[in-house]
Amino acid sequence: MSGTVSFTVPGFLGNGVSAGIKETGKKDLSLIYSAVPAKAAGVFTTNAFKAAPVLLDMDRIRSGEARAIVTNSGNANAATGPEGYENARRMGAEAARHLGVREDLVLVASTGVIGQPLPVQGIVSAMGRLVSGLRTDGLVDAEEAIMTTDRYPKMAVRKCVAGGREITLCGLAKGAGMIEPRMATLLSYVLTDADLDAGTMNRVFRAAVDRSFNAISVDGCMSTNDTVFFLANGAAGNRLLRGTSPGFGVFRDALFQVMEELARFIVRDGEGATKVLDIQVEGARSKKEARAFAYAVARSNLVKTAFFGQDANWGRIVSAVGSLGIPLEPDHVDVFIEEIPIFTGGAGAGGDEKALREAMELPQIRVRIRLDAGKAAFRIFASDLTYDYVSINAHYRT
Amino acid sequence: MSGTVSFTVPGFLGNGVSAGIKETGKKDLSLIYSAVPAKAAGVFTTNAFKAAPVLLDMDRIRSGEARAIVTNSGNANAATGPEGYENARRMGAEAARHLGVREDLVLVASTGVIGQPLPVQGIVSAMGRLVSGLRTDGLVDAEEAIMTTDRYPKMAVRKCVAGGREITLCGLAKGAGMIEPRMATLLSYVLTDADLDAGTMNRVFRAAVDRSFNAISVDGCMSTNDTVFFLANGAAGNRLLRGTSPGFGVFRDALFQVMEELARFIVRDGEGATKVLDIQVEGARSKKEARAFAYAVARSNLVKTAFFGQDANWGRIVSAVGSLGIPLEPDHVDVFIEEIPIFTGGAGAGGDEKALREAMELPQIRVRIRLDAGKAAFRIFASDLTYDYVSINAHYRT
Repeated sequence: MSGTVSFTVPGFLGNGVSAGIKETGKKDLSLIYSAVPAKAAGVFTTNAFKAAPVLLDMDRIRSGEARAIVTNSGNANAATGPEGYENARRMGAEAARHLGVREDLVLVASTGVIGQPLPVQGIVSAMGRLVSGLRTDGLVDAEEAIMTTDRYPKMAVRKCVAGGREITLCGLAKGAGMIEPRMATLLSYVLTDADLDAGTMNRVFRAAVDRSFNAISVDGCMSTNDTVFFLANGAAGNRLLRGTSPGFGVFRDALFQVMEELARFIVRDGEGATKVLDIQVEGARSKKEARAFAYAVARSNLVKTAFFGQDANWGRIVSAVGSLGIPLEPDHVDVFIEEIPIFTGGAGAGGDEKALREAMELPQIRVRIRLDAGKAAFRIFASDLTYDYVSINAHYRT
Repeated sequence: MSGTVSFTVPGFLGNGVSAGIKETGKKDLSLIYSAVPAKAAGVFTTNAFKAAPVLLDMDRIRSGEARAIVTNSGNANAATGPEGYENARRMGAEAARHLGVREDLVLVASTGVIGQPLPVQGIVSAMGRLVSGLRTDGLVDAEEAIMTTDRYPKMAVRKCVAGGREITLCGLAKGAGMIEPRMATLLSYVLTDADLDAGTMNRVFRAAVDRSFNAISVDGCMSTNDTVFFLANGAAGNRLLRGTSPGFGVFRDALFQVMEELARFIVRDGEGATKVLDIQVEGARSKKEARAFAYAVARSNLVKTAFFGQDANWGRIVSAVGSLGIPLEPDHVDVFIEEIPIFTGGAGAGGDEKALREAMELPQIRVRIRLDAGKAAFRIFASDLTYDYVSINAHYRT
């Protein structure tokens, strides 16, 4: 996030306030509102234990329309039973009432501790204040109010010209732990003033999720609340964008950039993380296998602790690659750290030790694993595993 | 390990010496020798990158016979290419020469850092000393010499009467990190003086591995060197034991006990571990699914750090159970910690908070997850995730 960038999108307003959910008194209630009707798409966690707001939204998103996203942080409203569902509904209804929009056009999200009753009374009391404070430059407040263990806010913005108008894409995200989405990650909202064909919107959004939030791993844990929303309100006044429109490629690239940047922010802010591992698998037989190899390395606690210790213990990388039961030729696997060969022909490659030590000190380190089995590739961003990860997660509730 | 127990098995000798592989000067070369011919069975890692000695042993074990197991610690002789294989062969050949037995009757194992050339010259030089020091009560030295990051030796012994004679079963094991066998774990050798039918021996051994070493998880990482051997030399002089023999059940139970005890020792000594989690899944549709649920909880870094922090954050348990994509009814899942209900009907069970806090302080904690989908069950032992795990593994090579 650069201070010179303006996080505003025509037609969207935002705000964030404290509703007393976080004991620290920090902002914990967030609202994003489109002043005009917006098309909406959503992707949710595949966890069997879905949080109450996820269940509510999965139903509401089917209409393909939304006006607002109301989010609380500090409490996940997950594993809270029928009462939790009623509280999620109430939270949305209260926002709808103050905004003067239909209840089913309000999306609801929660993030925080699992299994505690949602303090809905505080949320209801704060709603009037939240709505009356909505403003064009309030998306940064909306972002601040969805953060939990995040060390810094995560926002990305791109502009492009498509369909004859300048179009803005702005994304916000929160997330630092319980990060390994299989469908989406934590909370992220991407807003645009583009006028988009609904089918195109859904397709390009899913493609963007796959290459951003579905290609990161912090701790291998999947949340009950993962939600990514994409809202497009058409305020730019462009000619309707379809997949075949001349300007669509530019728009798609801008969307990919926004979402990949947000995903990268989440890894960099991974709980306790000191490094980003950029793991690239190539030469696999299929995308599925490439992905499996990349995740095996990204998830390995031994690999993650070695990188924290700046120790190029490549044996752990190789061991993780070999652990899946996927057939491979050990002698035809090459591994590089920042393009320094470290494993080849079934043994250490004897790369430049000094260069390797320097590479291990970088804040972002590229690990390239080249198989000789096919043409499929997958790239994933992962964090290291540190004392602080343990500290944060051993004492999260207390 | 109790000081009053004798770790000896008729017909077996052991010894351990320093061959200068470990910089600390601790014992790092181990030998177990059967004075008489012994039947042998082995189970090995399924990692695609198998260490050189594993490749050698997989070939040798086919004969179903062995006389000796020579092991070095401090170097895994893994990812060492053709030279590594030659070094493993040489290590075995040197032991065979000093013992005066056929080379193909010597099993070879290595454990330690991956990807470094085996210092075979030191091993060759120490072999005479290793063999000449063999003695009946030397299994404890053999154990000491296979340890790496282990904080304490792991040995278990049982006696039983079968086939008309008293029979001894003694197992030794090493292992603390890179522990999540899918076929076997790290190094463990189980010795008995029973005379066993070869087919029966293989079957009961595999069953024992499944309920011991294949039911533990420390860090979810699979080694390149995992090896479990079972040697039976018949020195007890019992009537040949088959699966249908009257005394076989007693023998099998003793074998299960020895191997389960060793597996439990490994979890308790998990790198940096302060607690053992005894995770029991029941009511699953199949054993495979029960196992998958149990492993998902056992592997979750969030669950493991919560237990380290003595925080009954059951939302993380539930979230791990739900993350697999296996269909389940959230409302029909019950979770108990030490029999205190903590989750039921899709929400917190509001169990006795004080009792729960006390339960979380126990050194071994039972987590029971009851599904309502079938009759299959699986039990796994796992360690917690601590600062020391990170410390040990961030700086293992340095």
